[in-house]
Amino acid sequence: MKPFVFVNLAMSADGKLSTTERRQVKISGRSDFLRVDEIKAGSDAIMVGIGTVIADDPSLTVKSERLKKERTDRGCDENPVRIIIDSEGRTPENAEILHKGPGRRIIAVSEKASDKNLERLSPYADIIVAGKDKVDLGGVMEALSDIGIKKVMVEGGGTLIWSLFEENLIDEFYTCIGSIIIGGQSAPTAADGTGFIKEENFTKLELIDMEKADDGVLLRWRVK
Amino acid sequence: MKPFVFVNLAMSADGKLSTTERRQVKISGRSDFLRVDEIKAGSDAIMVGIGTVIADDPSLTVKSERLKKERTDRGCDENPVRIIIDSEGRTPENAEILHKGPGRRIIAVSEKASDKNLERLSPYADIIVAGKDKVDLGGVMEALSDIGIKKVMVEGGGTLIWSLFEENLIDEFYTCIGSIIIGGQSAPTAADGTGFIKEENFTKLELIDMEKADDGVLLRWRVK
Ligand SMILES: NC(=O)c1ccc[n+]([C@@H]2O[C@H](COP(=O)([O-])OP(=O)(O)OC[C@H]3O[C@@H](n4cnc5c(N)ncnc54)[C@H](OP(=O)(O)O)[C@@H]3O)[C@@H](O)[C@H]2O)c1
Ligand SMILES: NC(=O)c1ccc[n+]([C@@H]2O[C@H](COP(=O)([O-])OP(=O)(O)OC[C@H]3O[C@@H](n4cnc5c(N)ncnc54)[C@H](OP(=O)(O)O)[C@@H]3O)[C@@H](O)[C@H]2O)c1
Repeated sequence: MKPFVFVNLAMSADGKLSTTERRQVKISGRSDFLRVDEIKAGSDAIMVGIGTVIADDPSLTVKSERLKKERTDRGCDENPVRIIIDSEGRTPENAEILHKGPGRRIIAVSEKASDKNLERLSPYADIIVAGKDKVDLGGVMEALSDIGIKKVMVEGGGTLIWSLFEENLIDEFYTCIGSIIIGGQSAPTAADGTGFIKEENFTKLELIDMEKADDGVLLRWRVK
Repeated sequence: MKPFVFVNLAMSADGKLSTTERRQVKISGRSDFLRVDEIKAGSDAIMVGIGTVIADDPSLTVKSERLKKERTDRGCDENPVRIIIDSEGRTPENAEILHKGPGRRIIAVSEKASDKNLERLSPYADIIVAGKDKVDLGGVMEALSDIGIKKVMVEGGGTLIWSLFEENLIDEFYTCIGSIIIGGQSAPTAADGTGFIKEENFTKLELIDMEKADDGVLLRWRVK
C-alpha cells in the first residue's frame, strides 16, 4: 500500500524551478500562495529532498490561521508531517523545518547515514531507514502508509520528483506556470535526474484541468 | 528595425524539448501539427540554431498542399525563408533544410566561419556575416528586416532561444505542453544557455491565451 502522492510546483514559462545558482525566486503570485496553503493543509504529509532543504531552508508550515484551526479542530497537528529525503542524514540541525511550528517530522535516510548523524538528528525528527545508498522511496511510501498517512504532497525539488516518476510513485502533478523566463541550461526543472531515454518509458499524463492563476496558469495532470 | 519574432515550441509537462540524448521525440499531437504548419506558412522566415539542424535534421517546409498553394497564390515561395544560426558555418551540405522543397535559405555566420565553409555552403544558401565569435542576432534581425522580412518564427533550440530572450529580440512565445514527462537534468529546455541570475533581468511575460491542444495545452505569451 502507498499513500496518494501529488507534486505541486511553481515553474517559469520555460520550465525552471529556480535560477542556475539554485536560488529560490518568486514565480507564482498571491492567489497561488493561498491555493498552495490550502492543499498543504489538506495533506497528511509534505515531502522535500535534502537539496531543497539546503537551497531554500523552507519551514513547510501551514500559513493561514483559519487552515491551522481547521486542522486542530479535526484533531490533527497544525502542520502536516514534514518529511525530508536525505540519504546521509546531512540535514542541518538548525533547518527551519525542524524548528518552526508544531507537528511531527520524519527524516528518511539510507543505510549510508552515519550513526553520528542519526544521533544528531533524532532529537528533532523520527528516522526511517530505507535503501542501501539512496533512500528507497517505495519503501518510505509503504512505511508512511503503515503509520496512517494517506495523502502526501511533494514540494520538490526536481531530483526527488524525477526519482518518484521513475519509480511510478506519483498520482497527480500540478504546475503553476509563472509569467517569467528564467533560462539556464543547468537551472533546476520539474524532473531532473537521468531522465527517460525511450518513448515507451515516458510517464504518460492526462490533463485534469487548466485555469488562470494570477498572471500565470495552473495545470493539473493525472498520471495514467 | 527588426521583424516581429515569435517562438513556437513543443515541450513536455516537465519543460523538456527532447531527451538527454537530444533525440527528437513526439511531444504534441495531430491538431498541433496542423497549427504549427499554419503559423509556419503565415511567416516570412523560419529560424533554427545549428544545434537543432545537427540533432533533428529538419526540413522546415510547409506540409499542407493548401497552405503551399495559398503562399504561391499570393506571390511567395512555397516555403518561408529558412535561416540557420551557425557561427562557424558547420551546417552539413546534405542537411534536409538545404535540399527539401523550393525557397530561399540563409545561413547566418560569425567572422569565425572559415572561407572554406563559406564556399562550401554558398551554392545552397545566402550567407550573412554578423558578429565576431557568435552570431550577432540583433544584426541578423536588422539584415532580415532590410530584405523585407516582417515575421520570423523561431523553432529552437533552447540555446538559440535563450540568446534571443537575453537580447530582448522575442515578441511572443508559444509553448504546446504535451502530456508526458521526459525528465533529465541535461535534457534541452525552452531556454538554456547561461540563464538570468537576478529577478530584475527575468523576461516578463503576459498570457495571451491558453487552450487545450490534443491531450495537452497551448500557452501563448507576449513579452512585456
Ligand atoms: N519552484 C518550486 O516549486 C520549487 C520547489 C522545491 C524546490 N525548488 C528548487 O529546487 C532546487 C533543489 O532541488 P534539487 O533537485 O537540487 O534537490 P531535491 O530534489 O530537493 O533533493 C535531491 C536530493 O535528495 C536526496 N535523495 C535521497 N534519496 C533519493 C532518491 N531515491 N531519489 C532522489 N533523490 C534522493 C539526494 O541527496 P543525497 O544523496 O545527499 O541524499 C538528492 O540529491 C532548489 O533550487 C530549489 O529552490 C523549487
Ligand atoms: N520540441 C521542440 O519544439 C524543439 C524544437 C527545436 C529543437 N528541439 C531540440 O533542441 C535540441 C537542440 O537545441 P540546442 O540548444 O542544442 O541548439 P540550437 O539552439 O538549435 O543551436 C544552438 C547553437 O547555435 C549557435 N549559435 C550561434 N550564434 C549563437 C548565438 N548568438 N546564441 C545562441 N546560439 C548561437 C551555437 O553553435 P555555434 O557556436 O557552433 O554556432 C549554438 O550552440 C535538440 O535536442 C532538438 O531536438 C526541440
